[in-house]
Amino acid sequence: MKTGISVNRVPLARRAARLVPTLPAAEPADVISFGSGHGCPAVFPDLTEAAKAALNKHRPETLQYGPTLGLPGMRAWIARHVMENGARNIGPDNVLVVNGAKNGLGLIGRLLLDEGDAVVVTAPTYFTCIPIFKTFGVSFYEVSQDEQGLVVSELEEILARIRDEGKPLPKLVYNVPDYHNPSGVTMSLERRQGLVRAAEKFGVYVVEDSPYRKVRFEGEPLPLIKAFDASGTVIVLGTVSKLVAPGLRIGWVVATEDLIARLAQLKSDLGTSPLAQRIILEFVTTGGGYARHQKNVRETYRAHRDAMVAALRRELPEVRFTVPQGGYYLWLTLPPRIDADKLAARAFEEKVGIIPGSKFYAGKGPKGLGAPTNNVRLCYSHAEPEEIEEGIKRLARAYRSLG
Amino acid sequence: MKTGISVNRVPLARRAARLVPTLPAAEPADVISFGSGHGCPAVFPDLTEAAKAALNKHRPETLQYGPTLGLPGMRAWIARHVMENGARNIGPDNVLVVNGAKNGLGLIGRLLLDEGDAVVVTAPTYFTCIPIFKTFGVSFYEVSQDEQGLVVSELEEILARIRDEGKPLPKLVYNVPDYHNPSGVTMSLERRQGLVRAAEKFGVYVVEDSPYRKVRFEGEPLPLIKAFDASGTVIVLGTVSKLVAPGLRIGWVVATEDLIARLAQLKSDLGTSPLAQRIILEFVTTGGGYARHQKNVRETYRAHRDAMVAALRRELPEVRFTVPQGGYYLWLTLPPRIDADKLAARAFEEKVGIIPGSKFYAGKGPKGLGAPTNNVRLCYSHAEPEEIEEGIKRLARAYRSLG
Repeated sequence: MKTGISVNRVPLARRAARLVPTLPAAEPADVISFGSGHGCPAVFPDLTEAAKAALNKHRPETLQYGPTLGLPGMRAWIARHVMENGARNIGPDNVLVVNGAKNGLGLIGRLLLDEGDAVVVTAPTYFTCIPIFKTFGVSFYEVSQDEQGLVVSELEEILARIRDEGKPLPKLVYNVPDYHNPSGVTMSLERRQGLVRAAEKFGVYVVEDSPYRKVRFEGEPLPLIKAFDASGTVIVLGTVSKLVAPGLRIGWVVATEDLIARLAQLKSDLGTSPLAQRIILEFVTTGGGYARHQKNVRETYRAHRDAMVAALRRELPEVRFTVPQGGYYLWLTLPPRIDADKLAARAFEEKVGIIPGSKFYAGKGPKGLGAPTNNVRLCYSHAEPEEIEEGIKRLARAYRSLG
Repeated sequence: MKTGISVNRVPLARRAARLVPTLPAAEPADVISFGSGHGCPAVFPDLTEAAKAALNKHRPETLQYGPTLGLPGMRAWIARHVMENGARNIGPDNVLVVNGAKNGLGLIGRLLLDEGDAVVVTAPTYFTCIPIFKTFGVSFYEVSQDEQGLVVSELEEILARIRDEGKPLPKLVYNVPDYHNPSGVTMSLERRQGLVRAAEKFGVYVVEDSPYRKVRFEGEPLPLIKAFDASGTVIVLGTVSKLVAPGLRIGWVVATEDLIARLAQLKSDLGTSPLAQRIILEFVTTGGGYARHQKNVRETYRAHRDAMVAALRRELPEVRFTVPQGGYYLWLTLPPRIDADKLAARAFEEKVGIIPGSKFYAGKGPKGLGAPTNNVRLCYSHAEPEEIEEGIKRLARAYRSLG
């Protein structure tokens, strides 16, 4: 079925130019995947009892239309969760339940971004945020990261220069402060405070996206960036995808009541599934299943990380990386002569899926100096330890074959 | 928590002006609701077995991220469903699974509508579509309805006039052809064919939203408008909300492969819940539960309609309405001296919730002559027959009190 008429359809072509694929194509079954940040099927919890309660005891609620903002109990649980992570003065009215954190990011885009606007992202940044922002026709400013996370002094220089040149300031700074995707870096306390101060000074929003926060293997958790926000400049995105499972598509936005009310107006899908919300609520509040599950998640993914780190050190000792204290990813720096795009193509022939670093840059890289060509993101969450062993051997074969 | 900074935030204020509430506020428990089109809790099916299978046998699929376009089995089932309803040459590649039909309408807006564009709606129209379209900054052309549905000759006159005046044509015509919300009218076969021809002639899309199609009490179903579309001008919106239950938030868009691919790019939420999709698939394809459920839905809502019709004829014989052959709603025409907004306010004091007809007009009414002030929409789906009896008595009291 092809469209035969085109009289009135100019915008399609214009919009199409902005659009780029949001996810790598599905990989064949015999490929070991270190690509997308999928959960390990072995740690998915048994939600049967939670679903039974949701579908029977709560049937008039779970099978009906729900409130646009989310179930009151879900919003209260999320508010407590965010408070337990260091934020202050957050209540249910600061919470909008959404269809996964990415739905929240899309709504933030619809509310705040107009064609021609700009946003700030780290270099590298979470690759799925790039096409989402692009659908709004925005441009990017890229700011460097170091082992302390987003370099706030560089951000301030960029913002001051834009202001001094009389150009419109970017609308928001998007960042993943905990176990950054893809770099694995956790932003320091001082940088978190500094980022809020800079955002307030220039009047830009901070979008704090922290899906991996609870997937912590070592060390003490730092407060959310939101913890340092007294003016409402920080918008938090969260998800149960890494706390329970991605398949329920439950996430949240935490922001000022004013912003939440506006975002809810744009969330015109008649609310996130009350059934999915109630299954989550039953699971996280009934019995000890949630505590056991979180422990299982941490232990499983720590073992995955350790397996990947050990295999890399053995098979590819010339590759550098920082061992992340949590999250799903290793960010490899290859010798400069290795082109990561070529390596990814060769690795795929060896039946291992990796994502070259180039996908994680929204533009020309930090300071416009060009995006590095010798990084690779490896996801250790999805594959089992034996597959990780085998996958790194395949990756090493691909690497050696590049000479 | 109030936002203290405003330097860079002009768009918020501009967008806020466009936004109006999408749903009536929740009603207190002692109010009998003839307002929102909610399902009757007594007909919600038992999905426990479907959920058990989805959460166990299919766990690696249902708790993982799913495909952006939807589960292949769900897309195939939807394609078959649309074909069984008269459409031709529809396959899974013509289907995008969305978070309820309204999510689909929002995506269509994002793809097709720019600020300053126009859309065509019937007068009256489904009231939730009005704020959704308004978030895109569009204006409305209203076209009349009669007992055959949307008046295609009037639509053609409107489009010809716009073209002759050299103004931009509207991007789409939005219509609910089966048991129209709020009017209850079903569009005739000739009008369906005529609407497609007019849309093709002028190069505008038709958005065919038909949630109530299967809630049929009498008569034979007519083919979808899509059945007469060979050029790809008709975009179908569907939902399981009325087939199974609203709480799963599963809907679909059926369109050309090209449009589906573009809409999927804008659906940046990493896909509709594979768990909710699998629960539906299990329910509609396993055992006889789905067939029994559909029969139960039809019989229950027919009894609700009959109870409301009988009560109205007894309590309010001066009110006129057409008995709908399906769907959820009665559209009352009151004597012209009665102001329906005042009646709704008085009815609420009598503890019965109704929606005045004024909410269903996107503008000044058909031919710009002013929206009628003496209509009311009554929803008979949600309340039980005894509540319907009592609610209509309360409504009659409110009516008499207006003198």
